[in-house]
Amino acid sequence: MRILGIDPGIAIVGFGIIEKQGSQLRPVQYGSIQTEAGLPVPLRLKQIFEAMQNLLSTYQPDEVSVEKLFFTKNVTNGITVGQARGVILLAAELAGLPVYEYTPMQVKQAVTGYGGAQKKQIQEMVRILLKLKETPKPDDVADAIGIAITHAQFSNYVRLSEGAKK
Amino acid sequence: MRILGIDPGIAIVGFGIIEKQGSQLRPVQYGSIQTEAGLPVPLRLKQIFEAMQNLLSTYQPDEVSVEKLFFTKNVTNGITVGQARGVILLAAELAGLPVYEYTPMQVKQAVTGYGGAQKKQIQEMVRILLKLKETPKPDDVADAIGIAITHAQFSNYVRLSEGAKK
Repeated sequence: MRILGIDPGIAIVGFGIIEKQGSQLRPVQYGSIQTEAGLPVPLRLKQIFEAMQNLLSTYQPDEVSVEKLFFTKNVTNGITVGQARGVILLAAELAGLPVYEYTPMQVKQAVTGYGGAQKKQIQEMVRILLKLKETPKPDDVADAIGIAITHAQFSNYVRLSEGAKK
Repeated sequence: MRILGIDPGIAIVGFGIIEKQGSQLRPVQYGSIQTEAGLPVPLRLKQIFEAMQNLLSTYQPDEVSVEKLFFTKNVTNGITVGQARGVILLAAELAGLPVYEYTPMQVKQAVTGYGGAQKKQIQEMVRILLKLKETPKPDDVADAIGIAITHAQFSNYVRLSEGAKK
């Protein structure tokens, strides 16, 4: 199964594509979609949407995993990131892919086994789990891979319980 | 000039299309795009996106006017509406249309001449300005028409000042 993990944003969208074979995880591709701060928001949204469509057709993921957003302090930022998240979800839906979302707490738990883990610890675990030489940069990329790994772990549980019902 | 006004939302997107000829405003079409609460968010976003594309190709507006969002209390709601707003802006951008945004205060000012106007007063003025027999329902539709009217008024000022420069 191939999973595309996404850390949504308007200036930087982190993405991480991993292949899961049994309990093994393998990195396929990772990086970021970046848009210029000076450009009109509708144009930046179009750039994100088209880059997402490109990613989906190039790497053909089976499922998409996106961070669930919580903004308790900066509401304007929440609306802006929400707009970017909207076109990302749309691109996945138009490609007929199922989308799963995970809270930051679930990502910490799945990647490090500890819900109170620091950002640095998650990034280090992402590096170890995918046998990478260096932690992917910027942070958004490592975060996106972490979100993909989280879905890989959770989909294990789902299959286990589905199997148990039979 | 034909203006499409939009009041964004995930359950209801109000829209109002008006034609501006000189200082005259004429209603072309208004209504709402509605999505079911029980459906997955990516699917609801796709429904909104496709309904927007339909509106744009059917009514061929020249410019799009969208309410600027402010949510000071409910952040989760802000993210959700932000997602819907994202696919609306994307549809306009993909159609090559310029998008303008106005705050609720600017809408009140433009429609009623008074920034502290009540929602009911705006709706009544929308009805009077467009010579409608009844106030369009639900509120989101009247709001969307108000946002279109606001752009019609503001674009007047812009032209006036551009003319004054010559």
